[in-house]
Amino acid sequence: MHAYRTHNCAQLTKENVGDTVRLSGWIHRKRDHGGVLFVDLRDHYGITQVVADEDSPALQLLDSLKLESVITIDGEVKARDAEAVNKNLPTGEIEVFARSVTVQSHANELPLIVNSGEDYPEDTRLKYRFIDLRRERVHNNIMLRNQVITSLRRRMTDQGFSEFQTPILGASSPEGARDYLVPSRLHPGRFYALPQAPQMFKQLLMVAGFDRYFQIAPCFRDEDLRADRSPEFYQLDFEMSFVTQEDVFQAIEPVLAGVFEEFSGGKSVTPAGEFPRIPYAESMLKYGTDKPDLRNPIIISDVSHHFEKSGFGIFEKIVGGGGVVRAIPAPNTNEKSRKFFDEMNDWARKEGFSGLGYVTRKGGEFGGPIAKNHGPEEMAKLYDELGLGENDGLFFAAGKEKDAVKLAGAARTRTGEKLEIIEQGCFKFCWIVDFPMFEYDEELKKVDFSHNPFSMPQGEMEALETQDPLDIKAWQYDIVCNGYELSSGAIRNHRPDIMYKAFEIAGYSQEEVDANFSGMIEAFKLGAPPHGGSAPGIDRIVMLLADEPNIREVIAFPLNQRAQDLMMGAPSAVSARQLRDVHIRLSGEAVEASKAASAAEKTDMNSNAANNDVTPKDS
Amino acid sequence: MHAYRTHNCAQLTKENVGDTVRLSGWIHRKRDHGGVLFVDLRDHYGITQVVADEDSPALQLLDSLKLESVITIDGEVKARDAEAVNKNLPTGEIEVFARSVTVQSHANELPLIVNSGEDYPEDTRLKYRFIDLRRERVHNNIMLRNQVITSLRRRMTDQGFSEFQTPILGASSPEGARDYLVPSRLHPGRFYALPQAPQMFKQLLMVAGFDRYFQIAPCFRDEDLRADRSPEFYQLDFEMSFVTQEDVFQAIEPVLAGVFEEFSGGKSVTPAGEFPRIPYAESMLKYGTDKPDLRNPIIISDVSHHFEKSGFGIFEKIVGGGGVVRAIPAPNTNEKSRKFFDEMNDWARKEGFSGLGYVTRKGGEFGGPIAKNHGPEEMAKLYDELGLGENDGLFFAAGKEKDAVKLAGAARTRTGEKLEIIEQGCFKFCWIVDFPMFEYDEELKKVDFSHNPFSMPQGEMEALETQDPLDIKAWQYDIVCNGYELSSGAIRNHRPDIMYKAFEIAGYSQEEVDANFSGMIEAFKLGAPPHGGSAPGIDRIVMLLADEPNIREVIAFPLNQRAQDLMMGAPSAVSARQLRDVHIRLSGEAVEASKAASAAEKTDMNSNAANNDVTPKDS
Repeated sequence: MHAYRTHNCAQLTKENVGDTVRLSGWIHRKRDHGGVLFVDLRDHYGITQVVADEDSPALQLLDSLKLESVITIDGEVKARDAEAVNKNLPTGEIEVFARSVTVQSHANELPLIVNSGEDYPEDTRLKYRFIDLRRERVHNNIMLRNQVITSLRRRMTDQGFSEFQTPILGASSPEGARDYLVPSRLHPGRFYALPQAPQMFKQLLMVAGFDRYFQIAPCFRDEDLRADRSPEFYQLDFEMSFVTQEDVFQAIEPVLAGVFEEFSGGKSVTPAGEFPRIPYAESMLKYGTDKPDLRNPIIISDVSHHFEKSGFGIFEKIVGGGGVVRAIPAPNTNEKSRKFFDEMNDWARKEGFSGLGYVTRKGGEFGGPIAKNHGPEEMAKLYDELGLGENDGLFFAAGKEKDAVKLAGAARTRTGEKLEIIEQGCFKFCWIVDFPMFEYDEELKKVDFSHNPFSMPQGEMEALETQDPLDIKAWQYDIVCNGYELSSGAIRNHRPDIMYKAFEIAGYSQEEVDANFSGMIEAFKLGAPPHGGSAPGIDRIVMLLADEPNIREVIAFPLNQRAQDLMMGAPSAVSARQLRDVHIRLSGEAVEASKAASAAEKTDMNSNAANNDVTPKDS
Repeated sequence: MHAYRTHNCAQLTKENVGDTVRLSGWIHRKRDHGGVLFVDLRDHYGITQVVADEDSPALQLLDSLKLESVITIDGEVKARDAEAVNKNLPTGEIEVFARSVTVQSHANELPLIVNSGEDYPEDTRLKYRFIDLRRERVHNNIMLRNQVITSLRRRMTDQGFSEFQTPILGASSPEGARDYLVPSRLHPGRFYALPQAPQMFKQLLMVAGFDRYFQIAPCFRDEDLRADRSPEFYQLDFEMSFVTQEDVFQAIEPVLAGVFEEFSGGKSVTPAGEFPRIPYAESMLKYGTDKPDLRNPIIISDVSHHFEKSGFGIFEKIVGGGGVVRAIPAPNTNEKSRKFFDEMNDWARKEGFSGLGYVTRKGGEFGGPIAKNHGPEEMAKLYDELGLGENDGLFFAAGKEKDAVKLAGAARTRTGEKLEIIEQGCFKFCWIVDFPMFEYDEELKKVDFSHNPFSMPQGEMEALETQDPLDIKAWQYDIVCNGYELSSGAIRNHRPDIMYKAFEIAGYSQEEVDANFSGMIEAFKLGAPPHGGSAPGIDRIVMLLADEPNIREVIAFPLNQRAQDLMMGAPSAVSARQLRDVHIRLSGEAVEASKAASAAEKTDMNSNAANNDVTPKDS
């Protein structure tokens, strides 16, 4: 018989009744029914009920053990009485009568209760993450993450991608987010940086001729933290050669749709091949954002032309001054009180907008000042045009286009939420495409790049030479799911001549381009294929699938919101020798802060942190 | 028709003759046969021959293009003449007659020739790694690495392991190899460290109840570099709960044997389930090392007792003084001259040993001074005992056991190589087991741990309490393949009581243990399963399979031997603001070095490095 177990804690069924078995696991729960002790024995796989009564020599020892102690049980599988069967448990038809018990590990008093859903402060949970991870919800989240990543890898491989590791000790780049720096020992005064993303490496892999690359890539950004941001995060980074934008979509839709279908738990998912492609301009108009949540049925419309000569003075003035009026339907609001509409207006003002106009409608009757001023006939015409019904309300966001778009988008979301018409139980994907290549910078009074200077302009050189720059679109695209941007990506500009021209339009000379981007451009001058890619966020995907709003719920050992590992005690003070080795000194303020922190630590909860541990490592 | 290709460059066969096709790739080679131009078009997948003659409008443009330019060809598939068929190429039966050609990317003069096996200085290769990676050998190595890792992942998953990512921003530990440090911005004066290995995290994952963990884990050690060492390397890190040493072996042998069989290219591999388990003591005796190359048939024997009363004074004296004599057979050396044996003796002296005695034998006749002094009868007895034949020579390594073992091991390897009897075309695995838990420290005159204080002693508490510490073995094991240690691992000591006792034997109080290892011990006091694991080196596995002696040949973008990335310009100087942000200053020497380096760089080959590039990243 195996030293620790013949079965795991999810394996035994009625088939095993009568078998002599050995199980190992944690004492999850104990119930004493007057001389009969029930123990839920838990391992990674599940729970099995163990029983001991006064006939069992194991009773006394079992009874004495604290929850979460690790034990090995020798016993006999028995069928449960009909009324004791637990249909929610794979092992719910049996129990194991304990003949003997061996203690593998005594548990002391626990800082967290494992067998309850009780909430604890995040710092307690993270300091004792090895206990927190035993709890069902976190355990499941981490297993889900593992399964999602395994599935993504398989799906990418099925699509002909190969995974390569790119360096983690990389070069610092002077712009973008803040780099994490690593001082060099061999090169005094010089630093590596952890990659914010393997962008240049993946493009160089294409220049090197590896047709389809992907990587579950660790990325690092030293930014201030939020619930959905971790200093260390993972991307499904990928890049392909000899492809158009449509090829990228066709390669990646089956991967995303597939993994969401696999783990959505029955929620519907936009099928591969059917992700809508929504041009950026259309998205800004219809959804008031470039990250539309398509579960929200509300569609925004431009109704500026209705108010060019309106009785409603404010709108007339706005439209006359080059502004716009956008209409946000509030369907089936005939039963809603005036308060519902006024509250929306108040909300808009609190958000810093000048206000959210509205029209109410009840059985065809319009209400509210705008309807009054505009007149019921004009209003009915507008309703007909928008296809609205006799019980639909309508909000108006008016102002400069940029502001109106923003307000309309926010009002659309809020209206959908308030009216509870956002479709539940589904993941709705779309691509946002046709981003403008250039935009007019009002401050600098010049044309500049809108998003990514390194995306290929649609129409390539000819477009740059013949079109109004502000009309040129880029081969750039975002993947959006339920209102969250999973990723942005692009077909890259791999042609130095087109790159120089694009930069010229944005006001940069060839010399300036060479000075700043020589590495990529020199590589592109040695034979570069057309290529493109993207990098969906893994943590975000798992958060969506696990329905968790906090990224730290889907990472096994996350840093806390102050970027600390309370369990291991990172970041920590290091020795003077370590600093000398890498040729750095602390700044004056760091010396002071460090002293203060060391003094405080002697009494704080970190004093137990594992940061001093010296364990020889497998190698 | 697709914008870039209907087929890749390895797809077209006789079946396609007559088809109109489009191919894209790099111009690998051009041959001009007087008005007929042959172009080998290369992509990731293979090579297709493209032809243009004076009938083709593509001829002139094709003729004008430099090697490594990227082109798209439209043309027609034609069967090659019988004498032109190339059986080594999947596309060797056809060629594509070019009707038109589109240039995707012009290549300038190349710093490396792609289509030749010519050798270049490593720094040239690494600075232009994106070109170097196009070359067949490196391209194949990197694809092999990808395939090996994919296969390892699949095999680990098949064995019930789940992959989890452990943190890369971790805590510094004061001992072991040198850490790479990362200064914290939010916590002045404090530092993260990159993981040397995820040792504590994987053990905590077991404490957290995740039964079988693995990870293709990036590890970082700031050590001086060698051909087989990179600052950044990967381990197949794994850990299992509720297992004995034998369970670990049974889980991992199929993974290693499987992946070696899959990629050995026909070499034989020790089958899973048949890896010999060689106790440490036996390995030191028979092979003179704990990393035995089992392809070498030579077995060392202890022959000390033969010389206790020998005519050969030196050996008698050594054995009398507590030393040993080890015999290393040199089979079938009857044809070898005296010079062969003397050269071995000279080599041993050069290596710092006192010398390597020997006996020659030719048709049963012994030769050499040792045989003479020992006498032919005694010598024949010794030969019989060792099972040696009438044409076998014999070397002797004599001295203190430690020295004799070392010399015998080195002589065994050298003899095997010189005699060319090391079996080729095979991968021979073994486990080295039963490492001693303790050893006697001659300097400190005390018992100390021999290898890993955190391994479980065999016999657990009872052994510690009742046995001579120097007799106690540990549940610790190495995986060795062809003389290379792929990994060391252990069943861990998960019991605080046994840990305190083991440390007590090595002379440490409970207080000292708590002060240094509180993190792990506290975790083990909250319910820890018995667990163990190991961490075979991925780079080493790929090096063995690719038959490459240098680790940088199996990494896509390695740092050079001075830990620099010449392509991206890392490590590099960073801005004063970046240093201020993370509360550090350069040491005086670093400031000087930095100034000198910046001045030098203006003229050096790094001035083109991509380190200034600011490319927006997919996110």
